[in-house]
Amino acid sequence: MRLIDEIRLDKTNTKYLYLQLFDELKKLIESNNIKPHTKLPTIRYLADKLNVNSSTIVNAYNQLEAKGYIYKKIGSGTFVQDVSSKEVKELILDEETNMNMDNLRLDVDANNDEKIINFASTAPMPDLFPIDDFKIVLNEVLDRDKGRAFMYQESQGYLALRKAICNYLISFNINTSESNIHIISGAQQGIDILSKALIEYGNVVFTENPTYTGAIAVFKSRSARIVEIPINKDGIDLIDLEYKLRSFKPKFIYVMPNFQNPTGYSYTITKMKKLIELADKYNFYIIEDDYISDLNSIAQPRNTLKSLDTVDKVIYIKSFSKIFMPGLRLAFMIIPKTIYNEVISAKHISDISTSSLIQRAFHLYLEKKIWQKHIEQVNTIYTKRYNTIIKSIKKHMPKQIKYILPQGGLNFWFSLPSGYSANELYKLCYKYQITIAPGSLFDVWQRDTRHFRLSIASIHNDEIDTGIAKLGQIIAYFLKNNQKDPIAVDLYNNLF
Amino acid sequence: MRLIDEIRLDKTNTKYLYLQLFDELKKLIESNNIKPHTKLPTIRYLADKLNVNSSTIVNAYNQLEAKGYIYKKIGSGTFVQDVSSKEVKELILDEETNMNMDNLRLDVDANNDEKIINFASTAPMPDLFPIDDFKIVLNEVLDRDKGRAFMYQESQGYLALRKAICNYLISFNINTSESNIHIISGAQQGIDILSKALIEYGNVVFTENPTYTGAIAVFKSRSARIVEIPINKDGIDLIDLEYKLRSFKPKFIYVMPNFQNPTGYSYTITKMKKLIELADKYNFYIIEDDYISDLNSIAQPRNTLKSLDTVDKVIYIKSFSKIFMPGLRLAFMIIPKTIYNEVISAKHISDISTSSLIQRAFHLYLEKKIWQKHIEQVNTIYTKRYNTIIKSIKKHMPKQIKYILPQGGLNFWFSLPSGYSANELYKLCYKYQITIAPGSLFDVWQRDTRHFRLSIASIHNDEIDTGIAKLGQIIAYFLKNNQKDPIAVDLYNNLF
Repeated sequence: MRLIDEIRLDKTNTKYLYLQLFDELKKLIESNNIKPHTKLPTIRYLADKLNVNSSTIVNAYNQLEAKGYIYKKIGSGTFVQDVSSKEVKELILDEETNMNMDNLRLDVDANNDEKIINFASTAPMPDLFPIDDFKIVLNEVLDRDKGRAFMYQESQGYLALRKAICNYLISFNINTSESNIHIISGAQQGIDILSKALIEYGNVVFTENPTYTGAIAVFKSRSARIVEIPINKDGIDLIDLEYKLRSFKPKFIYVMPNFQNPTGYSYTITKMKKLIELADKYNFYIIEDDYISDLNSIAQPRNTLKSLDTVDKVIYIKSFSKIFMPGLRLAFMIIPKTIYNEVISAKHISDISTSSLIQRAFHLYLEKKIWQKHIEQVNTIYTKRYNTIIKSIKKHMPKQIKYILPQGGLNFWFSLPSGYSANELYKLCYKYQITIAPGSLFDVWQRDTRHFRLSIASIHNDEIDTGIAKLGQIIAYFLKNNQKDPIAVDLYNNLF
Repeated sequence: MRLIDEIRLDKTNTKYLYLQLFDELKKLIESNNIKPHTKLPTIRYLADKLNVNSSTIVNAYNQLEAKGYIYKKIGSGTFVQDVSSKEVKELILDEETNMNMDNLRLDVDANNDEKIINFASTAPMPDLFPIDDFKIVLNEVLDRDKGRAFMYQESQGYLALRKAICNYLISFNINTSESNIHIISGAQQGIDILSKALIEYGNVVFTENPTYTGAIAVFKSRSARIVEIPINKDGIDLIDLEYKLRSFKPKFIYVMPNFQNPTGYSYTITKMKKLIELADKYNFYIIEDDYISDLNSIAQPRNTLKSLDTVDKVIYIKSFSKIFMPGLRLAFMIIPKTIYNEVISAKHISDISTSSLIQRAFHLYLEKKIWQKHIEQVNTIYTKRYNTIIKSIKKHMPKQIKYILPQGGLNFWFSLPSGYSANELYKLCYKYQITIAPGSLFDVWQRDTRHFRLSIASIHNDEIDTGIAKLGQIIAYFLKNNQKDPIAVDLYNNLF
């Protein structure tokens, strides 16, 4: 703390005071003069000390957080980030898109990328995309609608598509009307729009932890205060949730109740119902990101929160990316009537409307039932991979590695013994041409953890067993030769 | 003020205090118990009076502003909105897309929409869209790239398209590299992304007034404080600008230097250079929204701020919507190197990436020079309409109506005599099946004004003269029979 006390700001300088403070703190952190996970002084303390307005401190801290130098834990304070893992953080944004996953190699040097076995990416492989079918519907739309296919579409979305989606939802026990459906340019945009519509400066938002950090980045960009709730094998930790509901008034909670990303866990129906009860009792919305419930390798049909929602508190987001074609940028939301106006305005200021052509083509695709055919094909392929990896995991994974196998989806979540660093394991795997997704990519605070995710989205069935066998060997070697790292974090309350 | 002093908040109620206050103030405003344009008490005064935290007042005021009940004028305070014009405001968002322009009828009842002459919309008519050409390039991409056309694209945009855009820009005297080009899903998204990247809570942003209120809505959604600078016939009022630069430190100024929307005015090259000098001197960015400089009915080529930018302070946004096909949702930005990282992150959290298929198709469209051919065709058509309307305006517009004719573009801006309400004129016109765009749609504070805009984007050449003749008659009648409304606002410092 002494070094911070020595900071002086120059009020005669034309440079903003908060930027001066930002630079000073950045220097101290980068030079390791303030150690990782050190608690920073409170805003009031530092404002008094430096004789500046508290907003100067707030702005400097926000900037430092945005750049990955510090992290905030609500109720606990502000802490210095471990900047040695900063490169990992900078790549988090790319994780879902797999654009630069190979940059994650950090200080590892690897020469031949071509043989890499990719258990890290969740992006589907293009050989699964129904290009020929989609080309037919695209051309049909162009011939039928001509210029109208390129006019602005209503911000809420193409009416015929909204109706077709309502019909499609009936088989999922979701009964809603087209007036509640909103078409968006992908699930990520849905999260962004909802944040615009619902979050004001300083509002509290709850999320599962670990979770999809593309959502966290949006909440932070709206200056929300994020409160994490741990997830267990049967869904979110309701005791922790209700405890925190007594202290905070969240605008919403962001959850993935089916095949949660990254854990693959699913909520029991009892937990789903209880969560909705709590939303009603404590008056908050639930954002249900249903990115993948269609992919159900074990036969019983999945429930969704929305199908159980009798109080109109669930905001349902469904993307077509993960099981269809990510580059389409198409998804939809079901929106409670209470927030209709806010959502329409937020969509409008975001990009006015989603591509009219793509909406019209996808409408035909749904209407002609080509979609169903596609889902069945994809499910067959993924189920095969699912069965293969389950068998391989049981066969090759060292016994010190703990896991709970999901009933479907694309993701599998593992825990190293206490104290081992998944970031370090990642580096070792990369050296041997295997990519895994370390838990830091899914932690709300991007801390290094002892957990990692494997995905079967970007890997061919015949690579799986070889890949897992090799991974098993690498892990065995890793556990033997790596010292425990006391910083690696547990994301659970005693799950194992 | 007495009524406000009577407000009491119930701290034992589970309802948020700020929502209680919001409801109380809303009631007072809706019931007309607080008159339009009344100044509200300061945050500190009300916080003391109600014995609550100042953030309660801030949140309530923000909410009231978002819902259109109040408006803030920086440096002056917070004022009650004229809620009788609230319906007009609610339709502002639809103005650019022309989706619900006909809802703007307010209390006017009209039966037969079909014969409406539309001078209000700036959306191009679908009969100008090059559907057949675009269909060819779309199919070429599908055959060539197959599944790759539907994978995630890099957040920055498809590299080949970025390169083609650099080549295209050379003829506009803009020399830049593909690493500075960012592909976005329309200009509106560009404004949204820049706001995410640059605006923090409470930052100041400068804009022209009148302006494109789709931009204002974004700045407000990021809780920016907006300072308006009047625009004159030769560009922004530099004296006013520099005066305000001494009091405020804006993050950026948002401008349309060519054929400004709604006025049609263009900056002189001297003003352009001076603006860039000021940006350098006072250290702020300039967002140049170049929505239409290609449409140049009077032959001399247009300058852009970006082509004159030697200090890398200009952020250039170019949409293809207004002159191509709005439903494509495609635009690009040129980004100063200093904000590269912020912009990439903001794009990523907004929608990950813009449609890969559309980017690839548009790349071929540019590469094969079909784009040039299209621009030339469109320019011929618009120039014809431009010449027609200029002639009609001179012939039919009552002499009390003031205007300065632009050298190109699609928009023409008129002023009623002092004190007359353009909202009222709008209603009268609508009754006679003509739509115009009243100035309130472009005012930063959505106030009723004495100005209105006519556009030639959505009207056929052969309707123009009849339309303007009829409009001239309506205006003559209006001026004779309508009392002056002292509330209607002047958007200029003595332009006429």
